[in-house]
Amino acid sequence: MSIYTERIEALRGLMKEAGIAAVIIPQADPHLGEYLAPHWQARRWFSGFSGSAGDLVVTLEAALLWTDSRYFIQAADQLQGSGIELMKDGLEETPSITAYLCSTLKAGDKVGVDGMLFSAPALQNMAEALAKCGIALDCHYDIVDKLWSDRPALPDGKIFIHEEKYAGRSAREKMADILASAEEEGADAVFISALDEIAWTLNIRSNDVRHTPVATSYLYLSDNQKVLFISPAKLTDETKAYLESQGVATREYGDAAAFLSGLPSGCKVLIAPAHTSGAVVDILGGRSVKVTVSPAAVMKSVKNDVQLDGVRNAMIRDGVALVKAFMELEERIKKGERTTETDVDTLLHKHRSAQPLFFEESFGTIAGYGPHGAIVHYEATAETDSVLAPEGLLLVDSGAQYLDGTTDITRTIALGIPTEQEKRDFTLVMKGHIALGTTVFPSGTRGAQLDAIARQFLWKNGLSYLHGTGHGVGHFLSVHEGPHSIRLNNVEAPLRPGSITSNEPGVYREGVHGIRCENLVLCVPVMETEFGSFLGFETLTMFPFDRTLFDLSIMTAEEIAWVDSYHAKVRELLSPALNTDAERAWLAMHTLPLA
Amino acid sequence: MSIYTERIEALRGLMKEAGIAAVIIPQADPHLGEYLAPHWQARRWFSGFSGSAGDLVVTLEAALLWTDSRYFIQAADQLQGSGIELMKDGLEETPSITAYLCSTLKAGDKVGVDGMLFSAPALQNMAEALAKCGIALDCHYDIVDKLWSDRPALPDGKIFIHEEKYAGRSAREKMADILASAEEEGADAVFISALDEIAWTLNIRSNDVRHTPVATSYLYLSDNQKVLFISPAKLTDETKAYLESQGVATREYGDAAAFLSGLPSGCKVLIAPAHTSGAVVDILGGRSVKVTVSPAAVMKSVKNDVQLDGVRNAMIRDGVALVKAFMELEERIKKGERTTETDVDTLLHKHRSAQPLFFEESFGTIAGYGPHGAIVHYEATAETDSVLAPEGLLLVDSGAQYLDGTTDITRTIALGIPTEQEKRDFTLVMKGHIALGTTVFPSGTRGAQLDAIARQFLWKNGLSYLHGTGHGVGHFLSVHEGPHSIRLNNVEAPLRPGSITSNEPGVYREGVHGIRCENLVLCVPVMETEFGSFLGFETLTMFPFDRTLFDLSIMTAEEIAWVDSYHAKVRELLSPALNTDAERAWLAMHTLPLA
Repeated sequence: MSIYTERIEALRGLMKEAGIAAVIIPQADPHLGEYLAPHWQARRWFSGFSGSAGDLVVTLEAALLWTDSRYFIQAADQLQGSGIELMKDGLEETPSITAYLCSTLKAGDKVGVDGMLFSAPALQNMAEALAKCGIALDCHYDIVDKLWSDRPALPDGKIFIHEEKYAGRSAREKMADILASAEEEGADAVFISALDEIAWTLNIRSNDVRHTPVATSYLYLSDNQKVLFISPAKLTDETKAYLESQGVATREYGDAAAFLSGLPSGCKVLIAPAHTSGAVVDILGGRSVKVTVSPAAVMKSVKNDVQLDGVRNAMIRDGVALVKAFMELEERIKKGERTTETDVDTLLHKHRSAQPLFFEESFGTIAGYGPHGAIVHYEATAETDSVLAPEGLLLVDSGAQYLDGTTDITRTIALGIPTEQEKRDFTLVMKGHIALGTTVFPSGTRGAQLDAIARQFLWKNGLSYLHGTGHGVGHFLSVHEGPHSIRLNNVEAPLRPGSITSNEPGVYREGVHGIRCENLVLCVPVMETEFGSFLGFETLTMFPFDRTLFDLSIMTAEEIAWVDSYHAKVRELLSPALNTDAERAWLAMHTLPLA
Repeated sequence: MSIYTERIEALRGLMKEAGIAAVIIPQADPHLGEYLAPHWQARRWFSGFSGSAGDLVVTLEAALLWTDSRYFIQAADQLQGSGIELMKDGLEETPSITAYLCSTLKAGDKVGVDGMLFSAPALQNMAEALAKCGIALDCHYDIVDKLWSDRPALPDGKIFIHEEKYAGRSAREKMADILASAEEEGADAVFISALDEIAWTLNIRSNDVRHTPVATSYLYLSDNQKVLFISPAKLTDETKAYLESQGVATREYGDAAAFLSGLPSGCKVLIAPAHTSGAVVDILGGRSVKVTVSPAAVMKSVKNDVQLDGVRNAMIRDGVALVKAFMELEERIKKGERTTETDVDTLLHKHRSAQPLFFEESFGTIAGYGPHGAIVHYEATAETDSVLAPEGLLLVDSGAQYLDGTTDITRTIALGIPTEQEKRDFTLVMKGHIALGTTVFPSGTRGAQLDAIARQFLWKNGLSYLHGTGHGVGHFLSVHEGPHSIRLNNVEAPLRPGSITSNEPGVYREGVHGIRCENLVLCVPVMETEFGSFLGFETLTMFPFDRTLFDLSIMTAEEIAWVDSYHAKVRELLSPALNTDAERAWLAMHTLPLA
C-alpha cells in the first residue's frame, strides 16, 4: 500500500463520517493563479502527481486524476502504485468530472469541495451539472488541514518594494485609478484576490511562488480604507512604513474573510468572479458588483513609458545573455563536448543571472531536441535528457524576470545542415510570425480576430498548432497575464496600446521535430484615418533567428526584408552591449542579410 | 396633430388605465425573423417609420424611436411632425432603451411589452436591467389589437411544395434527423418558431414575407405527433394531402400556445431561445430543453448534393441574366440614354425574371452610384435616384430566389475611366476577397477567426468597413441565414462543409464612392493530414469583376492568376448558356486575362 493509498483511505474515513460521497481536490489556491506555493499543493500530497494542472477526485470506491495531454506520460508514471486512475482530459472518451460523478454517484449524494479553491463561476457550473442528477455540492468541505500533518506553512519570505523608477507610477495613483474605475461600475470598494494584480497595484514583490514574484495576500480598497491582508512575517519596518506612506494598512492574511463579512450591507464591492474564489463571492453576497475583468487587470496590461523603457533595456540584456549562451552552446557542440538539453538551461541561467537586475527565470526552460521539440511543454528531466548532436533542430523557450521587465523568447536552431523539410516548416512558421508582427488593425480588435493571420501559411499546407499564438506578458510579474491574448478561442478583451503579447506560432511533427518562433511584441498606435485609429506591433525581443533555416523560395521580398531589417536592429542594439570581439563577430555573422 | 400623435395618445390612454409607465413596440413578429408580414408592422403603424429595424418607446410624456445608422436620414424624415424623437442607436451619446427608461421612470413603475415579440434572452436582459432601477417588466402587455382597427390580417397566401428534386431530402427524413438530434440533447420533442426552419424542414414555401418564401406557422415535432400550426386558408387539398403523407397534422395557427400549455409535464421540448419568443419559453417552463442553435438551423445550413447542383445551375442562370443586364446598362450609358439607379433594378429584374425557376428577388436591389455607393444599405427612391454618367463607380448588390437556389452578388463597376484612388481601393478590397476565397482552415474554425483575412490589406492602408464579411445563405430561403457567419464579432457556430457564405469585403468613402465585391462561396473539404482535416471555399457565383478596376502594381502573381482563372471559369460556364454572339463577345471581353 503506497503512502498515497493510505492518505486517500484516511480521507475516505473523514468523508464517511461527514456523509460526503466524493471530494474534488484541485490544483489551485485561493488566488486562482497559475503557480502555487507548496502550502497549497494538496493535490500533489494526496496523489504524488506533481504536474501544474490536474484535479483529483476521490469517491468512497475510486480515486481518479484528471489532467491534460501535457501530463499524460508524467501522470501515468507518478500515479503508478497509488491506485489512482488517470483520466485523460480532452480525449473524447473521457467524461468531465461532473459527468463522471453523475454516472457513479446516486441522487441524494453529496460532493464536497473547498469553495476557496474554485472560482464562483466554476462552483456554479459544478453545482448545476450535479443538481441535474440530484447530487448536492457542499462548498465548505475543507479537510486538507485535518489530514496533512506536515503541511508547509504559508510562504513567509519578505516583500520588497518595486521602485517607482521601474514601475513608473505610485501605488497611490494606481489605487485612485482603480477606485475611479470601480465607481463607474457603481462600486465604492474593490476586493482583489489575484496576486499579480495586488503586486502591481502596490508596487510590491516577493518570492512566494516560483517564476512570478508575488506575495500571498488579499487587497481591499475603498476611499477611506485600504487594507492589505498579509502575514506579518512577510513585512519589515521598511515595507510597513512604505505601505503606510501609500495609505495602506495591513492585517493578518487570515482575517480577510471576517473583514468582508463585517462590511455594512450598503457596501458595493467590485470583484471579478473568474479571479475570485466562490467562498469570497458567497461572503460578499449582495454587496458585490461583478465585472468580467477587474480594473487592475486592465490597467496592469497597459504598460507606461517607464515600464516600456525598462522592458526595452531588459530585452537588450536578455539578448546579450542569449548571444553568450548560444555562442557557448555552438562552440561546445562544434568541439564535441557532451551537451544535453538540461545543459542548455544551465547555460542560459549562467549568462542571464550575470546580467544586472536579474531576479529569476520567468518559467521553466523548455529545451527540446529533435522529437522532444514536438512535446509542447517539454521540460527535460534526468531520465529524458537528450545529448545534442550536430544535426536536427533544437527548440529553446526561456525567459527571465528582471526588475525592469519580463522576457520570454523561443528560438529554434539547426545544430547541423538543415533538411528541406526542416527549412520549409521553419519558414512557414516564420511567415506567420512576420505576418502577425507586421499586421495593422483597428482599435478595439480582439486577439482571436488576428490569430489566423499567424496560422494561414501553415493551414494552407495542412499544418497546424494547437496552442495559442500569443499571451499577455506582465512587467516583472507573471509571464502569462490577461486579459487579452491571441488565440483560437474568443476573448472579449481587445489588444490595447501599451500591452505586451507574445507572437509564437509553431509546428510540431510528432516523433520528428518541433519548431516555435517567439518574440514579445508591444501594441502601438500606427495611424489615424477617417476610418478610425489603427494599431500595430513593435517587436521588443532582440535576438536573431537562425538564418540557415529560411527557405527563401517560399518567402516574399517583403518577408525577407523584414528579417534583414529585424536582424540589423538586433545587431545595432546588442553589439555595443557585448564584451568581446568574438561575441560581436558571432552576432554579425548571425545577423547577415538572408540573401 | 399628426395621425401618429393621435395613435400614441390613444395608446397612452390605455397605458394609464393599466398602470403602465412605458411601452416598447419592436420591429418584430413572434417568429423573430428578418422580414415581417404587414400584420406585424405595429411599430410602423404607431410611428410612420418604415425602416426594417428600430424600436418605438412610448412613455406617458415622451415617444422615441431607436434605430441604427442605416436609417438615421430616413427616420428623421418620416418622424417629422409625429412628435417622436429619433434616438440614434450606436452613437456613444445615445443611451440604450433600458438605460433611458431607468433615467426617466421611477422605482415602482411598470414597463409593458408583448412577450411574443422578444426572444427569451432579450426579455431577460431587459427585465434585469430594469430591475436594477426598481422597474418591473410586464411581458403580457399586448395592446396593439385594441388600437389598430385596420390591422392587416395574417398572411393567407397558399403554401406550395418545394419538390424533392430541388430540396434533395424528404420532410420525413429531415424530421427524423431533427428528432434524433433532439434526443441527444435529452429532448423527446422539438418546437420550431423560425419560419425558414419550418419551410426547410417540411419542404414547403409560401409568399407571406417579401424576399423570403416562408409560411407563417409553428411546428411541433415528436415521435408520435407532428403538428403544423398554420392558417387553414393557406392550405389546399394538395398541400394538406402532402403534409399528411409526411405524417404532419395541421391545426389553426392560433392554437399553438394552448397546445404547448397542454403538454404533459414530463415532456422535454427542445427550443432555441434566441429564435423563440419569450412568451413561448414561459409557456413551456420546465418542459423546455434549451440549445443555442436548433438542430434544424444547423442541418439547413449544410446543403446536400441535390441542393448544391441546383445552386450551381441557378448561379449560371443568374450569371446569364447579369450579363444581359450589365450589357444593356453599358450600352445605354454609352448611347447617352437617361439611366438612373432604379433603372438598374428594373434591368436586373427584367433579365432575372426571364430565367427559368425564378421566384422573386432575394432582397431589395442596392444600386448606389458615386457617393450613394458609400451608403451601405442604400436603396434608391424617387427622391434620391441618381442619373448615371460615364464616370465614377456604380455599386450593384442584388440577388434572386430561384426554386433551385438563392443568389446574392455585388459588383462594383467603373462607368468611365477609373481614377487611381478608385483602382487602388477596389484592388485592396479584391485582395481581401481573394485571400478569404482561397484560405484553408482546420475543421471547426469559426468565421470570426477568418474575418481579418479579408480585411488585412485594407487595414494596412488605414481603411476599413463596418459590416460583416460574410453571412450564411439559404437554399430558396432567407438570403441571410445562420448559424455561421464571417464577421468581427464572435459566433460560436463553425464553418461547416456544405454551408454557403457570402464573401463581401468593401470600402466606403463618405461622399466619394463605395466599393464591395461579393461572391457566394461553398465550404468544401480540402485535405486530411496528420494535423486533421482542412476546409476551404469553392466559389459559386459566376460573373466577372470589372477588369478596368484592378491595380496590378499592388497585386501578387497569385492574385492575378486567381482572377484570370476565375474569369476563365465564368466564361466557360456562362458562354454556352448565352443566346447571342454579342453577349458571348461581351463576356469574352470582360473575362480577358488582366495582364
